[in-house]
Amino acid sequence: MTDNRAYLDYNASAPLRPASRKAMSAAMEVCGNASSVHFEGRTVKAIVERARRQVAALVNANPEGVIFTSGATEAANLGLAPQISSGGVHRDASKLYVLETEHPCVLAGGRFKPDDIVPVPVLSNGLVDTEAFDGLLEAHDEEAGAPFLACQLANSETGIIQPVAELAQKVRFKGGYVLCDAVQAVGRIPVDAKALNVDFLILSAHKIGGPSGVGALIKVHDVLDITPAIAGGGQEKNRRAGTENVVGIAGFGAAAEEALSEAGNIDRIVALRDSLSDRLAPICAANGLSADRLIVFGQDVLRIGNTIMFAVDGLKAETALIAFDLDGVSVSSGSACSSGKVGKSHVLEAMNVQAGHARGAIRVSLGWNSTEADIEKFCHAFDRITKRLADMLKEEMSGAA
Amino acid sequence: MTDNRAYLDYNASAPLRPASRKAMSAAMEVCGNASSVHFEGRTVKAIVERARRQVAALVNANPEGVIFTSGATEAANLGLAPQISSGGVHRDASKLYVLETEHPCVLAGGRFKPDDIVPVPVLSNGLVDTEAFDGLLEAHDEEAGAPFLACQLANSETGIIQPVAELAQKVRFKGGYVLCDAVQAVGRIPVDAKALNVDFLILSAHKIGGPSGVGALIKVHDVLDITPAIAGGGQEKNRRAGTENVVGIAGFGAAAEEALSEAGNIDRIVALRDSLSDRLAPICAANGLSADRLIVFGQDVLRIGNTIMFAVDGLKAETALIAFDLDGVSVSSGSACSSGKVGKSHVLEAMNVQAGHARGAIRVSLGWNSTEADIEKFCHAFDRITKRLADMLKEEMSGAA
Repeated sequence: MTDNRAYLDYNASAPLRPASRKAMSAAMEVCGNASSVHFEGRTVKAIVERARRQVAALVNANPEGVIFTSGATEAANLGLAPQISSGGVHRDASKLYVLETEHPCVLAGGRFKPDDIVPVPVLSNGLVDTEAFDGLLEAHDEEAGAPFLACQLANSETGIIQPVAELAQKVRFKGGYVLCDAVQAVGRIPVDAKALNVDFLILSAHKIGGPSGVGALIKVHDVLDITPAIAGGGQEKNRRAGTENVVGIAGFGAAAEEALSEAGNIDRIVALRDSLSDRLAPICAANGLSADRLIVFGQDVLRIGNTIMFAVDGLKAETALIAFDLDGVSVSSGSACSSGKVGKSHVLEAMNVQAGHARGAIRVSLGWNSTEADIEKFCHAFDRITKRLADMLKEEMSGAA
Repeated sequence: MTDNRAYLDYNASAPLRPASRKAMSAAMEVCGNASSVHFEGRTVKAIVERARRQVAALVNANPEGVIFTSGATEAANLGLAPQISSGGVHRDASKLYVLETEHPCVLAGGRFKPDDIVPVPVLSNGLVDTEAFDGLLEAHDEEAGAPFLACQLANSETGIIQPVAELAQKVRFKGGYVLCDAVQAVGRIPVDAKALNVDFLILSAHKIGGPSGVGALIKVHDVLDITPAIAGGGQEKNRRAGTENVVGIAGFGAAAEEALSEAGNIDRIVALRDSLSDRLAPICAANGLSADRLIVFGQDVLRIGNTIMFAVDGLKAETALIAFDLDGVSVSSGSACSSGKVGKSHVLEAMNVQAGHARGAIRVSLGWNSTEADIEKFCHAFDRITKRLADMLKEEMSGAA
């Protein structure tokens, strides 16, 4: 991160918090394997256990339920498994119901067979289609096994918040299981694992200012258990083999602790996001673009306060991202596309957004270190980009005339 | 690590090298997701790609073949898969042959079904029983699929080096695959992926002075491919989903680079290990313990130069480890047992070591930062421990008399 740039892509990865950096640097000074019985081993173990309590506290879970993983993707792979035992008794799931707007790592369905994964549609406003979901749940064959729902709390692209507790209650009524992807929600809205009434939560450190490459599957209910996805070692109480990423886990814990304590900063970030949001239409208008060219996705429903996703008709995301980048502003077009290319958004597709708008989707996401200067820099670049778009459209018009 | 302790458990986890710490601190200053197209994303990607080249160089592999994972355990789980394609054509493996002395993460057999995992015995000297292996390979049903061998280069407990290239050639002759656990070998002996003639290597950063929680599966041959074990993202060329552990990977790369360049330090470490080894018998003798009470495992075969595993008849490992720990010396009893308890060694069991000796196995392992002072401290503690043992034996004798 260079100081003269505006980094507005926190939903892809947040800058490391100073508290995390400090905890990681301290952990680097300690050598040893958390499984060793000697002094060094015990010292390392204490670092991991402290972080476990910090992460648990962020979502009001029991520390014993926190299973550290290499990130939310591995956590989804571990949590989304048809083999589940409850109090030692096998009570398997037969179908996985997944919101169409879930993150790709959840859409992949973990260890469920592709044929057993059932997509749950969303409405054009981005919220789950409850009627359709009720129908699916009604049609679920309980003889074959329990239903398992994967439902995100907040969408990484649009920031739209789903009514997880409400859906979870329906699944519970059918004796099923719920995994909630809370990756983008924690640190932005209060997340209470018990109040959500879900069985599993997945978290990622680097979305809240911890390091990338560390996350957690949180087992909310003690009686539930899953089979490990990575075997060959007794770490994490036999649920996830492999020597722990101690430095990363220390950073995760510190980030979780700070994210939990900064309610005031959340209000500040929401205000920044809203001020940016309020300025989009006037900038378009000042450059002669008609008001209906601007569309903000999910504006009519509850969203997390750090995210805004919008499009300007006629402006391609790929062009805009490069222009923003050259102007020192880092934004994205939906999920960080792992191929390094700007692809079309499956989230907007599921919301039935028309292709023209979907092709131009720009996501701006703020976080703990965002400032008014970042917003200024963004608006300045947006002004230049929309001016160029208006000029181009005028040329096209005169060419056509 | 406190300065007044002697840390002699490098095979469990080595202290972080200053070069790794520096690379990790630098990576912490950079924010972004390696999959993002903007400036920050590209900066992060460059860090990961540099480390990929550094890790590849350590084992003379192609950088394109390096798949970063959360450690060797995940790498084993990823690499040990029956579904393999070669040049795009499926050519599956039907049986996994595993040395009985492999690390638990390899013994678990990855994604092979338990019934398809065949143990390969070792001789009492710790080396593979080639005659038995030849028989197994001879009996292999090629119609059912190719044979797959998992063979460690160096054992984590005894340090014994297996003739991997020789075994690999036999498996090749049968059209099969070989995965080599080189975790404990790299940095201790030269490791050349191509000369070993294997298909896959697994590595771990924290055994060579990088951080824990990061490792790699190395695909030695470009034409081979495996199905990902963690899906839902296109990272690592679609072979391993999940945002990269950038800080850890940076530290891994730096450790690999330094490990490759320090041939001189290896000689120094071997000399230290040998001086420790030479002093064990005289210390026992000075305390009145008969020479046949001391046994050094794998003494007659090739071993890596940083490791010595021994037992003193009558001395229980659990008692010894606590006594060493109280005296400020950190050693272990075989693999870092992930339950935090001192268990019996499956390695010594496979070598048919008698129970009395196996129960007393003590592993001392050195590394980049080991000093003569560590050896002195160890010998001092060993002197006290053997003296106490001799006193106890005398009391027992007089009690019996």
